[in-house]
Amino acid sequence: MLRGFSPDLILALNLLGTFVFGISGGLAAVRHQLDVFGAIVLAIVVGLAGGIIRDLLIGIPPVTFRDWGYLAAAGGAGLVTSLGHPLIGRLQRPIDTLDAVGLSVFCVTGAAAALANGLGVASAIILGAITGIGGGMVRDLLVQEIPVVLRRGLYAIPALLGATVVVLAYKSGNHSVVFPIVGALLCFSVRMAGLRYELNLPAAKDLPGSVDPRRLRKDDRRSK
Amino acid sequence: MLRGFSPDLILALNLLGTFVFGISGGLAAVRHQLDVFGAIVLAIVVGLAGGIIRDLLIGIPPVTFRDWGYLAAAGGAGLVTSLGHPLIGRLQRPIDTLDAVGLSVFCVTGAAAALANGLGVASAIILGAITGIGGGMVRDLLVQEIPVVLRRGLYAIPALLGATVVVLAYKSGNHSVVFPIVGALLCFSVRMAGLRYELNLPAAKDLPGSVDPRRLRKDDRRSK
Amino acid sequence: MLRGFSPDLILALNLLGTFVFGISGGLAAVRHQLDVFGAIVLAIVVGLAGGIIRDLLIGIPPVTFRDWGYLAAAGGAGLVTSLGHPLIGRLQRPIDTLDAVGLSVFCVTGAAAALANGLGVASAIILGAITGIGGGMVRDLLVQEIPVVLRRGLYAIPALLGATVVVLAYKSGNHSVVFPIVGALLCFSVRMAGLRYELNLPAAKDLPGSVDPRRLRKDDRRSK
Repeated sequence: MLRGFSPDLILALNLLGTFVFGISGGLAAVRHQLDVFGAIVLAIVVGLAGGIIRDLLIGIPPVTFRDWGYLAAAGGAGLVTSLGHPLIGRLQRPIDTLDAVGLSVFCVTGAAAALANGLGVASAIILGAITGIGGGMVRDLLVQEIPVVLRRGLYAIPALLGATVVVLAYKSGNHSVVFPIVGALLCFSVRMAGLRYELNLPAAKDLPGSVDPRRLRKDDRRSK
Repeated sequence: MLRGFSPDLILALNLLGTFVFGISGGLAAVRHQLDVFGAIVLAIVVGLAGGIIRDLLIGIPPVTFRDWGYLAAAGGAGLVTSLGHPLIGRLQRPIDTLDAVGLSVFCVTGAAAALANGLGVASAIILGAITGIGGGMVRDLLVQEIPVVLRRGLYAIPALLGATVVVLAYKSGNHSVVFPIVGALLCFSVRMAGLRYELNLPAAKDLPGSVDPRRLRKDDRRSK
Repeated sequence: MLRGFSPDLILALNLLGTFVFGISGGLAAVRHQLDVFGAIVLAIVVGLAGGIIRDLLIGIPPVTFRDWGYLAAAGGAGLVTSLGHPLIGRLQRPIDTLDAVGLSVFCVTGAAAALANGLGVASAIILGAITGIGGGMVRDLLVQEIPVVLRRGLYAIPALLGATVVVLAYKSGNHSVVFPIVGALLCFSVRMAGLRYELNLPAAKDLPGSVDPRRLRKDDRRSK
């Protein structure tokens, strides 16, 4: 699928995505007063979880875990974040942008890996999205928050869109490198538009028995 | 193990179980004010997680994930629930009954899959139960509740009983289709009896350092 | 790697570690007022999760799950703990010591399993640590606590140290049985020193937006 790309470029993008997701793990650790070590662990988990879940669902040994480059990229992000968080905390906008880059890269490479292992259309699309959003879901679980991706629609939907472009092109016989690029750009654009305009899907708010909103994160409540 | 059954019947039962578990995921999403997308995701997770965990523990690629039928059954349940929750919320009794059907089907087919892959008695029984209860455990984790199956004994015990019937019959050389039926009926009956009479195993309540009961769900506290 | 050891000794140590971790799962269940069944389930999860995660990350079928000995050791620990918790609750010091033994055994055997399956230095060290700490992380997730290992540095660091000794010795060609012993003793010593002197890594405490400390467990706050 991605054979038109330079392997070095794919690796570089994957490492960039891993590093950026590692930062988001490190920032979650800082916000929850974890120590340096906790920040590194959380960064590795967030950086690698998407790819590990992808490989487990495909049924192959998790490849990123065997590659020290990914471990170093994610762990380094955790260390940097833990030490430099007052500065990094002020860089919310560039971090959000980099996070969207990571999401875009992972949904495309995840879908490509699923296709390369023979999965069908629906499975490959979902697997692409899972590769993008899996790290953030595990991050939120570990710090005891309901995964933000379940609460804010415009995180997973861009990933699904990007993966859909890749999968539909591949299944209709178009193996051009254009489609992964289009898929990644589509994912990136929708994600950035969602951030810019704080878009959300409608939620069922008025159900009796709804959960105490204090369980939600402060910054999420504000945008609702 | 289940070769005496029509594969169509097994597939139909598995899809029914997946759909019903998907509804329970969708209802949890509605209760936590997740949006439509969150409801679909949670429904897919709850509908497929039991089978995925089963296959990972056996050591084979997760088969349900590769089958768009399961994805459609679970995701459709999430969509329906999110859109129609005021109606579905009133259908608690039929949903509980269908959920017991899903539990009964999955504990039997899960145990059969474990046996077909050469696992021993204890492992196959536990794997059958995990197939039945895994989805609900993951659902509760994602919405930040202590898994209800850990707190209310008569959810996992019926699944263990049903799996035990299947495994013991198989290991003693009885490959008749009667035993999976008996196992499923036993699981179903015990589960329904537990619901009807609100049966629970004894808990250790008076330990110093016990956890604030506000962490427990309202409807669970009532039945204690 | 561990071929210099008697297989019986390794099995005995692994079963001891599984039993001890099962007790910690059972105690968590009692503290959260779970019933007898919940205590057994949590004990099995805590006792086996480290090894299962290890095998999934290596990419092999989880072996401990197929062995009824591990299931019996962990489940028995949960049963004993649930029934005898007033006594066991008073045995905090011997339990901490046994838990350190389990951590030391698992980080060494986990690293050895990773090496035997061809993983590199960084992956094998981390996998050894994960084998030791995975059970406790899953335990905390299931009872809705931020994993203690993320908050208290001197639980995972001893496991990393022990695994590092094993991996570096093996990769430099030293297959002597001395190194696993040294690794386990190093892990055990650092863990016990951490417990004795309540050592912790520095955390970032003063960040705006930090999380309500009521989410932390009482006994952890005291030691901060």
